[in-house]
Amino acid sequence: MRTTYCGLVSETLMDQTVTLMGWAHRRRDHGGVIFIDLRDREGLVQIVCDPDRPEMFKAAEGVRNEFCLKVVGKVRARPAGTENTNLTSGKIEVLAYELEVLNASVTPPFQLDDDNLSETVRLTHRVLDLRRPMMQKNLMLRYRVAMEVRKYLDEQGFVDIETPMLTKSTPEGARDYLVPSRVHDGMFFALPQSPQLFKQLLMVAGFDRYYQITKCFRDEDLRADRQPEFTQIDIETSFLDEAEIRAITEGMVRTVFRKALGVELPVYGELTYAEAMHRYGSDKPDLRVKLEFTEMTDVMKTVDFKVFAGPATSKGGRVAALRVPGGGEMSRSEIDAYTEFVKIYGAKGLAWIKVNDAGKGRDGLQSPIVKNLHDAAIAEILARTGACNGDLIFFGADKAKVVNDALGALRVKIGHSEFGRNHGLFEDKWAPLWVVDFPMFEHDDEAGRWNAVHHPFTAPKDGHEDLMDTDPGACIAKAYDMVLNGWELGGGSVRIHRAEVQSKVFKALNISAEDAKVKFGFLLDALQYGAPPHGGLAFGLDRLVTLMTKAESIRDVIAFPKTQRAQCLLTGAPSNVDEAQLRELHIRLRNPAQA
Amino acid sequence: MRTTYCGLVSETLMDQTVTLMGWAHRRRDHGGVIFIDLRDREGLVQIVCDPDRPEMFKAAEGVRNEFCLKVVGKVRARPAGTENTNLTSGKIEVLAYELEVLNASVTPPFQLDDDNLSETVRLTHRVLDLRRPMMQKNLMLRYRVAMEVRKYLDEQGFVDIETPMLTKSTPEGARDYLVPSRVHDGMFFALPQSPQLFKQLLMVAGFDRYYQITKCFRDEDLRADRQPEFTQIDIETSFLDEAEIRAITEGMVRTVFRKALGVELPVYGELTYAEAMHRYGSDKPDLRVKLEFTEMTDVMKTVDFKVFAGPATSKGGRVAALRVPGGGEMSRSEIDAYTEFVKIYGAKGLAWIKVNDAGKGRDGLQSPIVKNLHDAAIAEILARTGACNGDLIFFGADKAKVVNDALGALRVKIGHSEFGRNHGLFEDKWAPLWVVDFPMFEHDDEAGRWNAVHHPFTAPKDGHEDLMDTDPGACIAKAYDMVLNGWELGGGSVRIHRAEVQSKVFKALNISAEDAKVKFGFLLDALQYGAPPHGGLAFGLDRLVTLMTKAESIRDVIAFPKTQRAQCLLTGAPSNVDEAQLRELHIRLRNPAQA
Repeated sequence: MRTTYCGLVSETLMDQTVTLMGWAHRRRDHGGVIFIDLRDREGLVQIVCDPDRPEMFKAAEGVRNEFCLKVVGKVRARPAGTENTNLTSGKIEVLAYELEVLNASVTPPFQLDDDNLSETVRLTHRVLDLRRPMMQKNLMLRYRVAMEVRKYLDEQGFVDIETPMLTKSTPEGARDYLVPSRVHDGMFFALPQSPQLFKQLLMVAGFDRYYQITKCFRDEDLRADRQPEFTQIDIETSFLDEAEIRAITEGMVRTVFRKALGVELPVYGELTYAEAMHRYGSDKPDLRVKLEFTEMTDVMKTVDFKVFAGPATSKGGRVAALRVPGGGEMSRSEIDAYTEFVKIYGAKGLAWIKVNDAGKGRDGLQSPIVKNLHDAAIAEILARTGACNGDLIFFGADKAKVVNDALGALRVKIGHSEFGRNHGLFEDKWAPLWVVDFPMFEHDDEAGRWNAVHHPFTAPKDGHEDLMDTDPGACIAKAYDMVLNGWELGGGSVRIHRAEVQSKVFKALNISAEDAKVKFGFLLDALQYGAPPHGGLAFGLDRLVTLMTKAESIRDVIAFPKTQRAQCLLTGAPSNVDEAQLRELHIRLRNPAQA
Repeated sequence: MRTTYCGLVSETLMDQTVTLMGWAHRRRDHGGVIFIDLRDREGLVQIVCDPDRPEMFKAAEGVRNEFCLKVVGKVRARPAGTENTNLTSGKIEVLAYELEVLNASVTPPFQLDDDNLSETVRLTHRVLDLRRPMMQKNLMLRYRVAMEVRKYLDEQGFVDIETPMLTKSTPEGARDYLVPSRVHDGMFFALPQSPQLFKQLLMVAGFDRYYQITKCFRDEDLRADRQPEFTQIDIETSFLDEAEIRAITEGMVRTVFRKALGVELPVYGELTYAEAMHRYGSDKPDLRVKLEFTEMTDVMKTVDFKVFAGPATSKGGRVAALRVPGGGEMSRSEIDAYTEFVKIYGAKGLAWIKVNDAGKGRDGLQSPIVKNLHDAAIAEILARTGACNGDLIFFGADKAKVVNDALGALRVKIGHSEFGRNHGLFEDKWAPLWVVDFPMFEHDDEAGRWNAVHHPFTAPKDGHEDLMDTDPGACIAKAYDMVLNGWELGGGSVRIHRAEVQSKVFKALNISAEDAKVKFGFLLDALQYGAPPHGGLAFGLDRLVTLMTKAESIRDVIAFPKTQRAQCLLTGAPSNVDEAQLRELHIRLRNPAQA
């Protein structure tokens, strides 16, 4: 029926007759002629309705916004001076011969090109919201990304194998969504938090290279970039080492950026976890920001200033500086605002030094704290940071985690600020990197035990197996994250493929052999039958596409997202259900009055 | 690390050194030499371990079944007379230089090439079961099918858009799987039975061409070919009519058969629903079976034999004959067995006539019933069925549904039987067809109301809108099924795109405006805003692949299926969960003692 999409009509079709289907985006009457911007998923084209075809003109007069139309007409050049260079169809217009209203529309509750709609309005009227060119573009790009992922992995010999949605609850990690069983009274399925164990089983089963683009579920309180159901590009491969797995998945992301976005990603940086924390206070540093920490812990051990000397001399403490070139021009109120900001991350304050004249030493500095520092410390600060006149130096001094979080966030905040952009502290580019050599375990001081940093199936570095017994904190994992512009795009590891190593990890994590058997018995069992060396990675598709589209929210790259209260405003889910349904599932409400 | 897959080593690599990874499928010692069939997902290759490399030979001596190995060696021709033509690698073997045990295996609970394993054993040890070449082949083909679907639809401009897994319960159709909400006390999500409404909303949103390969859920008692979660190839398009939608999806299936299986499907047959029921008693006739019904209702109105005259003269009754060429040689016990068989479908008996000598009329027939039929009826039976000497004619006489079900099943049973195959009543081929023009409604005599045959969003044929009021039973839908070898591969329809037609259907189905608003308000709302004409189709991927692989069960094309009791024997799902989890979800067990 249709000869082409509205958005694709261009001067290459000059003088040809086209048949178009679309929606009336805007209608204007001008000098006795009706102009309709006809819209479809590919874009807009201008339709011209002349009164010398009375029947067609009459139909055009009845057209209102969002009417669904069929138009047959001839492509002609727009009059000189009326071209629109923003549109593919900007040099032409279509002179209508026939116009048929396929379906009328009541007046929409908002203008589609209104950019100031509340999220509640947008999600309640999601179908109309999805008609907006921005949402069309986002979801089309999302599709392109997924399809390019599939094509790339297909070429690399990966096989998409579906894993179950109705699976077993393992109350580790995040909270499960549960599904009551009707057939088995009192029992429940869980929706998968990830296909982790199944993909490992597929490697043991010999499928060699697996992938899946699949929904995962976590019943957590939602933050801005989280959804109860999210989509993972899940990858696992046998017989490859860390570097080979990284190369293959880096190639995937590189290909996707090239094919879906026309962007050639630069060479990936590579940082160890330790180095990333040391230099940026973060395991997902935004390398577009040209600011780095300077280590000061050793220097501050000897100062007579408790705020610094305390953390510098305590186990697990850290003192670090962040030099901000040109920061000397920041006002006191700006500095105060940053002081408030770092408190979010647990910092008790934010010490600072303005370098007015570095050559004058202490006298050239303006700061509430220099009086507390001896000359050698001051000299070392200036030397190590390389501070110049006009710079500002911030300090963090606390437990390492607090310093890293607070100063790390401050680094990003300043980099992205107007100040940062004006002072060349931010470079607008794609800055991908690998963060490698994550620790196997982190200590939970409150619970007094070790937790897995990645997950309990991650392999230790060769030669680190015994450290699991003797010094778990020093044990490094074969784990890696792909980071882009400060976002963790994906993470993975080489897995444990020997049952005895897996048992050792469970022991280090204080999981009893019995518990391990109940929860992961089927994995331990599988590892006994010649499990191959294997490893993989999982990428967050929602997040990847959010980055690529530069969308403001993850909800702008999902067709039918939930609100932060985990509701679908369009369909009204979740909702009450019939008592009979609950009875069949052998459950009852705890608070029936609520329902 | 690996240079190629085991199963792909062939004479093209003659004299080259290869590095292989795989599993010891079988190990034989023969004349002081060790032979190992090394297996990976692509197949087997024979490894030869000579004692003149002592270190390697020693490692080979320790190898047992299912050990995971790395082998480096040289490709050479097998000695003349030892070639295996069943294998890609059948003309060569690999002389091992190095052999490394990557991981040992305990003795597997069964031999991988044992074809007589119970399903319980197979599903309990699914990881080992998946190593079997048949399961590897099935899941690899499943992937190929899905990928070829994606490529085809991509080329046709379809866009994969994900719809929610956590959605709203609509207690229509099958039983929902429910998911209690933690955030909203007393409320539940439902897992989708299909993305039907969402894909229609995406058409209203202007995405034009949508597809998704996605999990759907139905909490029904399981039959042989059902799973609680199954995979649907879900397709929807705007602005196309029935024939165009069928052409595009037929092209998809045709392409998939060509690319994944190397099979060129023949031209599709096309039958109306009425004709299919008339000739085959089924809306998914297996056209490989060369048997057809002969209509006898009109003929039997006048006979003095109540068994035939009753149904022939009653409203909704039917009398039909099934001529079986060569059936005269069936024994009485065979006929008795078929009489028992049709009782499954509600038939009270199975009348029959053996045609010994058609030229002699009544006297040439052998039958318990001919005495009850007048000469004209007998003449008409012979004339209409075209029965020849040696044929057998079966009769069904009952309500039309019983006749269709019973005689339809008998037709397939005889066609597939040894008798049928020996008598040329079955042609082993691919026999695809479209069944079109389904009725809109079927009457539920018990409930005294009309139900939707397809679903309530299906559009009536042009001009049939008013029949919804005046004669619902005569109202034909724009609905179609794709049928292959007696299986419904997919079904779909053109949807209603005008709110007023949709309201009319709800009225015919006795769904009040209020009820419709509560359940489908968001769809009705969307239809008001210039919804485009649209329609689509959904294919069952599990079923398609089962057919293509000729697997015995749908569970043989699913990596981790559930049993018919809806359990996963591998992981033990469903399972008990902690009381704390239930409390967070605001539910309690009805029968705590069960858990």
